[in-house]
Order: sequence, then C-alpha cells, then structure tokens
Amino acid sequence: MAVTHMSQLFVRTLRDDPADAEVPSHRWLVRAGYIRRAAPGIYSWLPLGLKVLAKVEQIVREEMTAIGAQEVRFPALLPREPYESTHRWTEYGPNLFRLKDRKGGDYLLGPTHEEMFTLMVKDLYNSYKDLPLTLFQIQTKYRDEARPRAGLLRGREFIMKDSYSFDMDSEGLQKSYEMHRQAYIKVMDRLGFEYVIVKAQSGAMGGSASEEFLAVAPNGEDTFVRSPGGYAANVEAVTVNAPASVDASNTPAPTVIHTPGAGTIDTLVDAVNDVAPRADRAWTGADTLKNVVFMLQHPDGKKEPLIVGLPGDRDVDVKRLEAAVSPAEAIAFAEADFAAHPLLVKGYIGPAKDGEAVLGTESPTGIRYLVDPRVVEGTAWLTGANLADHHIVNLVAGRDFTADGVIDVAEVRAGDPAPDGSGPLELARGVEMGHIFQLGTKYAEALGLKVLDQNGKLATVTMGSYGIGISRAVAMVAETTCDERGLAWPRTLAPYDVIVIPAGKEQELVDEASRIALELSGAGLEVLLEDRKASPGVKFTDAEVLGIPTAVVVGRGLANGLVEVRDRTAQTKDEVSTEDVVARVIQDVRGA
Amino acid sequence: MAVTHMSQLFVRTLRDDPADAEVPSHRWLVRAGYIRRAAPGIYSWLPLGLKVLAKVEQIVREEMTAIGAQEVRFPALLPREPYESTHRWTEYGPNLFRLKDRKGGDYLLGPTHEEMFTLMVKDLYNSYKDLPLTLFQIQTKYRDEARPRAGLLRGREFIMKDSYSFDMDSEGLQKSYEMHRQAYIKVMDRLGFEYVIVKAQSGAMGGSASEEFLAVAPNGEDTFVRSPGGYAANVEAVTVNAPASVDASNTPAPTVIHTPGAGTIDTLVDAVNDVAPRADRAWTGADTLKNVVFMLQHPDGKKEPLIVGLPGDRDVDVKRLEAAVSPAEAIAFAEADFAAHPLLVKGYIGPAKDGEAVLGTESPTGIRYLVDPRVVEGTAWLTGANLADHHIVNLVAGRDFTADGVIDVAEVRAGDPAPDGSGPLELARGVEMGHIFQLGTKYAEALGLKVLDQNGKLATVTMGSYGIGISRAVAMVAETTCDERGLAWPRTLAPYDVIVIPAGKEQELVDEASRIALELSGAGLEVLLEDRKASPGVKFTDAEVLGIPTAVVVGRGLANGLVEVRDRTAQTKDEVSTEDVVARVIQDVRGA
Repeated sequence: MAVTHMSQLFVRTLRDDPADAEVPSHRWLVRAGYIRRAAPGIYSWLPLGLKVLAKVEQIVREEMTAIGAQEVRFPALLPREPYESTHRWTEYGPNLFRLKDRKGGDYLLGPTHEEMFTLMVKDLYNSYKDLPLTLFQIQTKYRDEARPRAGLLRGREFIMKDSYSFDMDSEGLQKSYEMHRQAYIKVMDRLGFEYVIVKAQSGAMGGSASEEFLAVAPNGEDTFVRSPGGYAANVEAVTVNAPASVDASNTPAPTVIHTPGAGTIDTLVDAVNDVAPRADRAWTGADTLKNVVFMLQHPDGKKEPLIVGLPGDRDVDVKRLEAAVSPAEAIAFAEADFAAHPLLVKGYIGPAKDGEAVLGTESPTGIRYLVDPRVVEGTAWLTGANLADHHIVNLVAGRDFTADGVIDVAEVRAGDPAPDGSGPLELARGVEMGHIFQLGTKYAEALGLKVLDQNGKLATVTMGSYGIGISRAVAMVAETTCDERGLAWPRTLAPYDVIVIPAGKEQELVDEASRIALELSGAGLEVLLEDRKASPGVKFTDAEVLGIPTAVVVGRGLANGLVEVRDRTAQTKDEVSTEDVVARVIQDVRGA
Repeated sequence: MAVTHMSQLFVRTLRDDPADAEVPSHRWLVRAGYIRRAAPGIYSWLPLGLKVLAKVEQIVREEMTAIGAQEVRFPALLPREPYESTHRWTEYGPNLFRLKDRKGGDYLLGPTHEEMFTLMVKDLYNSYKDLPLTLFQIQTKYRDEARPRAGLLRGREFIMKDSYSFDMDSEGLQKSYEMHRQAYIKVMDRLGFEYVIVKAQSGAMGGSASEEFLAVAPNGEDTFVRSPGGYAANVEAVTVNAPASVDASNTPAPTVIHTPGAGTIDTLVDAVNDVAPRADRAWTGADTLKNVVFMLQHPDGKKEPLIVGLPGDRDVDVKRLEAAVSPAEAIAFAEADFAAHPLLVKGYIGPAKDGEAVLGTESPTGIRYLVDPRVVEGTAWLTGANLADHHIVNLVAGRDFTADGVIDVAEVRAGDPAPDGSGPLELARGVEMGHIFQLGTKYAEALGLKVLDQNGKLATVTMGSYGIGISRAVAMVAETTCDERGLAWPRTLAPYDVIVIPAGKEQELVDEASRIALELSGAGLEVLLEDRKASPGVKFTDAEVLGIPTAVVVGRGLANGLVEVRDRTAQTKDEVSTEDVVARVIQDVRGA
C-alpha cells in the first residue's frame, strides 16, 4: 500500500465548529474534514470519512456472512405498489420521500425494504426445502425526518445494513432471530462502544417481539431503563404492572368540591386535604386523575380526539404515546379543538358529572378515553368535575366511571419497579444502533409469500427484519471516542494506522520520516506522511484533530537516534530508537 | 473462503426469457438469477449479480486510485440550488427526477455531480498549491429515461463511477484528461471487451473536447464511424467539410416549373431532367434541397420552429439534430403547426419565392433556417417553390437565397469521406461505456470556484469530468461473452472461479466432489459446489446458464480415477486424474 501524503490528501481541518453542530461527533467529523453537509440531514463523505465508513461496512458484512446471510442489493427508488399492499405508503406519512416519474407513476425512496425482500423471495422460492434463508443488503436509505439533527446521527439520507430472515415457523424465526442477535453482539463489540440490548416497540414495522441495541450516550435521543436484576427496555417498551384491584365498599360517594385557585396538583391536593380528607391517609398527587386531551392525526388524514387519564403526579411521555398510537401522530389539543367540544371544561376535565359519564365513546362527548394501568377497579380519585373551579373526590374506578381501555404512556421514573420484579429502574440515554424484529407473517401475508410445506400444503412464511445504522455507527464511534482535541479512532476503524510527522524542515528529519513511513507501509500498515509545509504545532494539532491512533514524531531527538511514538487515545508519548520504531508501531497496531 | 453450496445459494434459473428482454445480456442476467426488475429501468441485484458488480467496481477503483484519484461519496438526494446555478435544474428537462421534502423544499436525484464536486473543492481549497486534484465516487445515479431498455444497459437507477479533475489551466486539464484516458484504456482492457475511442459531443454537460469509449456491439444504441486512417467519432460528432464554393456566373436564373405527381425525390429528379436539364450534367437527388421543419421544445417550455435545409438524398439524423440543438428537444412539425404558419406550403417548402426570401429570421415567415455544410456559395439547387405542385430549379446559394447559418445534422453514410481525409467512413454500432470531458470553466464559473494563482490573483479553476457506467459494464460484459447456452464470464469477473458437480447421487461421487471443492477453496479459489438433488442434466444446464468459467464434473470416470474439467467459454472437456485436477484448475484460473 502506498504512503498517503498529507499535502495531497483532500482534507482541510477547520478551526471553528460548524454553526449547526449539536453534538461532539458532528462537530469533529466536520472540523476534521470527514464529512460535509449537502442539505439538512444529508451529508457528503470526504476521503477520510469514506475510509472509516468502509471499515464499518466490512465488519458488518463479515458478521452477516458468518451467519450465512447472503448479500443482495435492492434499488433505493421504488414503485408505490408493494408499499400500498402493506399500507406503509400511507402509514409512513410525511416521513416518506415520494415522487412521480415522467409518466406520472408514483415512486418512493426506500426507508426499509421489507416489501421488496418479501416479493423477491416469493419470486424465487416455493418450497419449505428452500428455507431457512437470510438475505442482507448494505444500502442507502431515505427518511424525511421532521428534525434531522446531530449530523450523521439522525439523517435523511443514510446507510443501513438491513437483513431479513425467512422461516417456516416461529421456532425457525426464533433461531434466525437469535443468530442475528449474536451477530449484532459481535458487531457492537468490534465497533467498540458501550451498549445495552433493550426490549423495544416495533412501531411502523409491525410484528411482535423486538429488541434494540442502544449505544450508551448521555446526549442520546433515546431513553432506556434498566434494573439491578437485568431488566432493560427502551422507555417506549416499558410496561407498568397493574396493581391489584381495591375493595371500594367503604369508600364514600363522590363529592363535588369548590376548588378556586387550585392551579397546580400541589395546591389542589392541599385544598382537598383541608375540605375533604380521606379516612385512611392524606390525598397525594398520585391520587389525582389527570385527563389530558390529544388530537390523533392518522396517516390517511383523519383526525380523532383521545383523552388519556393518568395519576396527576406523572406526565404523559410523548414518545411512549406516539409508540402506542403509531402510525397516528398525537398532537396537543388546540383552543379551536376545545371550542369544537364544549362539553370539555379545560382544566376541569373528569370522566363523570352528576353520575353520568362525560368521557368515553359511549358518553355524550363520544371521545375515546383510555387510562393508565394504575387506574384499577376500586381506586378512588380526585379529578375534574367538568365545571370551572370544581373538582370531584372519591370518584371510584369501576363504580363511578369506566374507561374504554388501558394505555400505558405515563412517564417512567427512576425508582419505578421493573415489571419483572427485578428491582427499581434506573434511567439512561442512548442511541439506537441496531434493531431486531420478529416480524412474523405481516408482510408475507400482505404480499402472498407462501411456500409448500412438508405436507404439500401452502404455508405462509415467517419473517424477521434486522437493521444496523452504518453511517450512524461512524458517528457513534466518533462520539464515544473523541475528546476536546478532536477525533480519536479505535485502531480497527481508523482511516490510517499511523501518521508520521517530521517536526521541522530539516532534510534529515524529512528523510527519516519518509524512511519510517515507507517501512511501515511496506509492512502493510496504512500510513499518512505529514509532508506539508507547516509548523510542528499545526501538524501536531491537526494529527490530533484527525484522530489517527498513533503518531511517530521525528524531531530534535533524532540527533540521539530517538523518535517519539504518541498514542492519540491514551495521550502517551514514548521515546523510541529509530531502529526499534517500526517494530514498535507494528506491534501497537497489530496488538501484542 | 468457504465453499458455497448451490442448495443454499439464493438463485433460481428460469426456463423462459423475461417478456421485456430485448438483448441477450438482459435475457441471461434475468434467467440466470443475477438481477430482477423492480420497476421500468430499475433493477435489484441478487447474490451472483452483486458479486460481478463488486468485481467491476474494484477494477475501476484500482485504476482510479492508480492515477492518484481520491474516493469520496456524495449524496444521491440533492438540493436544487447548485443545479439552478448551472441551469441544469431546467435543462435536464423530464430526464431529472425531482421531488419535494416535507417542508416543500425542491430536491433532485443526482444524474451527475459536477455541481457538488465543484462546491466541495471551493469549500476546501483556495490556492494553486492545492492543485491538481482528482476526486471520484462510485455511486448510484438517477435519470428518468423516456425509454428505459435492455435491462441494465439503459436504466433509470444505475451505478456509475464519476470523477472530476481540477487544474489551474488548460495545460493541466490536458494532462489530467490524458491520465484519465489511459486509466480508462486499462479499465476497458481489464473488462475485456472490444471497444473504440471516438470523438463525441458534450451534450448537456457543457465543455469542449470529449471522447467516448464505446463497446462494439451490433445491437448497441450508439452509431459511430471509423476510417482506415484512424478517424473515429460517434455519429453525433462527425463533421462534414464544406466543399469549396462554386462559380455560379454561368448558372441560369431560377425557374419555377410545374411538377405534378412528383411525390418522391426520384420522380422529381426525372421530371426536372426532362423539362429543365442542366447544361453540365444531369440533376441528381444530391442537387435537390429538402427543407425539413421541426419544432424545438426548450427546457423552459418555450417552443420555436426550425427549418433544416439539406441535400434531398439524405435524411436528417435525429440523434445528430438532438445533439446540435441540445438542451432543446426537436419534435416533428404537426398539422396544427403548419396551420399556424400558412406561408409554409407542405411538400413544397423552399427558401425563396418570386425573388424574395421565405425562410429565415428576416423573412416573412420569421422561421430560423439552417442549412447543411454542403449548401455552399454558388451551388445551384432544385427545391420547393412554396406553391403546391411546383418546384424551382437553379436556385443558387448566396445569389438567390441565404440561410441563418449552418447545421451539420444530415445522416452520415458508409463511404462518406472522413473529415480529416483519412479515407471513407465505415459505420458500426456500440454502447457507451465511458465518457471523458474537458469541461473547462463552465461549472467553476457558474459556482465561483476560484483559487489564488502564483501571483496572488484569483483564477478560475479548469475542470474535467469522467464517467464509467459500472452496472452497464456488467451487462456489456455479459452481452459480449454470452452464448446460446447462457452467460460465460471471463475469469476476472466471474462470481465463482469454478463449480464442482457430482454427476450422480452415489456417495463416492458426492464425497469426491466435496473433497475437490474443499481443496480448491483452500487454495483461495471461489468455489460453488453443486449439491442439489437434481439430475446431472439439470446441473450441467444450470452451470452453463450461470456461466461459471470452469466446471469440474465428477462422474462415472471416477471408477478409473478420472474427472472432467469443462471450460465454459471454449466449450472444451478434458479428462483429468483426481490427483491432478486441483492443480489443473488452479492453473486454469490463475493463468499459465
């Protein structure tokens, strides 16, 4: 491999952060000349960035091949019809890039390719003997994110590995899923960042079980929980165990009370403890039933109000709500919406008034009413009286009101019990690096993927779908390894193994640097030679910004036969003799 | 490398040609399970096809890297603005896939990336010291072809290598251009098909000199010419040398003659030779001046009529015309157009009537009038009299009429002289595999790419642009190597080096086939083992359809210690001993 000369390399480091940089990886990848923004959420790869990207791709490709997955490649520009069959053409809503060709035909830019893989297998295979089968592709994908952010972490054009398994039954799917899970563990280990595997919601993908691989990152977009006993889930997937029902035979009848000026849960609770104290204990915020109104916007354009009732000491978690109502979007109820529903008294909404239901599909408002799992039969609540400045106490679930169903979308808090009894939950943040789904038969049914089983009967194929964000992984590795000096790549992903820097213009320094670079290159290392006419200070700074794991500095020590070996990540400097430096660097790069 | 088992490989061969297959490569790539159509001009790559594609990519990447080009990757989804600056947003017309994002912003799917590369270099570089520079990418491109055809040969989503050179002056550009030209020669040689390098028109790319690398193919879309003396050009780029002007002092004055029933050039010439014979020789078809009316449709929607005058024994070549008027499109003049221009007498259009001009921007029709280079000063013509059933003879160019200019769009014929005097032209057909352009400063000027020159002054950078169709190359190699039995890959591009086929179910055949496959694989070859439960005939047929260069058949000869080595392309069969077969195959694959 030839030595790359820094003076020829298409790269420029920037002194200043890009204006839109929100996270360190974005800042440094741009400042170090790895990527450039072409449009919001759309990036170009410069030579250094592309080299890292190729290494991530290769790791993923190797681990996919190791589990017998075969590589294919589908187009990014796709016809509408298959996505119409699975309703995703509509359900993806504004997240889908749609376009028309010159003949007016409808096309989309593929966000994921379940439909295309399903149809391809249907085209080629027809017998149980052909299965199991796993296919994958590494390909450019498109999603018109409402808020592209953080550089490569949430882009609109991005590179993914997506794979799909095809089995005869759920036992086969379990096996394919487990193989993928193990392959993903190997990929994440090789990428080298801290990660957790959490239970997840399937969202628009459909299907049953799914897990996410989250890279732990304090500024990650995703929140997850874990317990001392090993429970882990993203916050959308956490479930609350319903408490046992309560005997309400001694609970007094509901009473409406005047609560002027009780603008917060706390002031309300104080007021009620004064005028209508409970017999057993004081009223708390957890005894208030807060009823929050949303407008659901369905992908087909239909709107529908929804009221969520939950303990007043918790808020609705918007991400949990969105996961629960997907593919609909939940928007805050606007003034105009209240005006259109005069039975809703803003700030004093409750499930009943004068012994009659106010909320629920069967009630006069007709609005669907779903409650938190904690609102079990027999629990007594303090809630709105559907009358300005009035609340009602001792409104008992099941006795005085019923809901249309349960919705588990209240915020999860540190200290909440894990649903499996494994202890109190801790909250942390992460970035989704991989997602594995047991799809089941959703796509195979929608698109008619059936094969003959052992009895000669047509059976619907069972599928799994598995994704890893390749371009996102580049950013995430940068994010978790960079420091205040710049990027600091792990050896497995660095664009070059070593940069050789003559710390001066003297010919003997330049010659010795060239010799070392050539020998390292001859040994098979990827070598960058810093041959620019620049001050040693600029060269050192840039080498740290670029994040090359090892730097060999040829400076004044050369007079004594010594050069310096610097480790970018550990920030160590060792003096090494010119005879030993090549062997030393090779050992550093290849491992002891 | 592990042995691939045919029973596990995601492939199925088809007995029948796909309905839309127009050319052998398309037919066989689909029948052999290398590609599948996803939409018109949009294809999915199956495992075997993707392997060949990767090999072509790698050849191109190696030759680009060898000339110092650095690899980058731009997005396919691009913002409108840069393409607006160069007018290509409009000029590409319906060939461009355009779309809007969720905020209504205009985007396109990149057909080529001149604008993006120009802006990137402008972003990073600012001095003559940074140049020369060559960048390339291997990337998916989009063009909404009116008539996608021939499978991968003319697709709407396709893979290209595009590269761009940046130099300070035209001398530098010449050097970069020549380096690319040599690299392309190496690529074409390694791909292994017959090709010619021809002078070309630049079309919508702009710029000055350009050459095409055409793969010679009888059913190619492009026509090119070549002469015994080495002239070669695609038909759009052929120029006709204007003959010397003629002394018309003895030519009689023009005369209108009645020509009823002269519906063809031949009957017209016969009639005129009767009633108005020439003094020097007989009138021929080459003496008639045919005036053909077109409607030019400009990308901005404007329409403009154009009349082309040319010798009546030749037709207008539509491709040459389109190249000449690009980015406008030339459409045949419709009846409604004639109705709107009553001065044009259909079938009898001529440049003059009663001594007054009828055609030309200054004439009563106001229609632009361009003539073939053969219509030189002093030539006498037989042409329409602008009166039904009447023609005019001895209408002399320069004396009796003038045109607005010259247009060189008449059909080129075998036997026409090469413009450089190198002999008579031969016509042949080919497929454009590569195109190299000396762009000059068009893009740098439009987008403001200037750097400081040696005198500290801002100078506009000079660019070249160079493309190779990667997916098209896969098809073209298939096209030129396949036969009536299927694909027949050259060794450098084959998805597998060898297929090992047990010709029977007997355990000893299967065991020996496995042993040979394992040994070949151990030696580093890519090996396919035909382990399906199928008849020997089916296996042999499929092996030929797939086009694996070497097949080792383990059959009845095994009793005598012999197996068969078959060469797919040469159609030879050799009996080889089981001890020698591995060495023999390795030698076949790696070359003598």
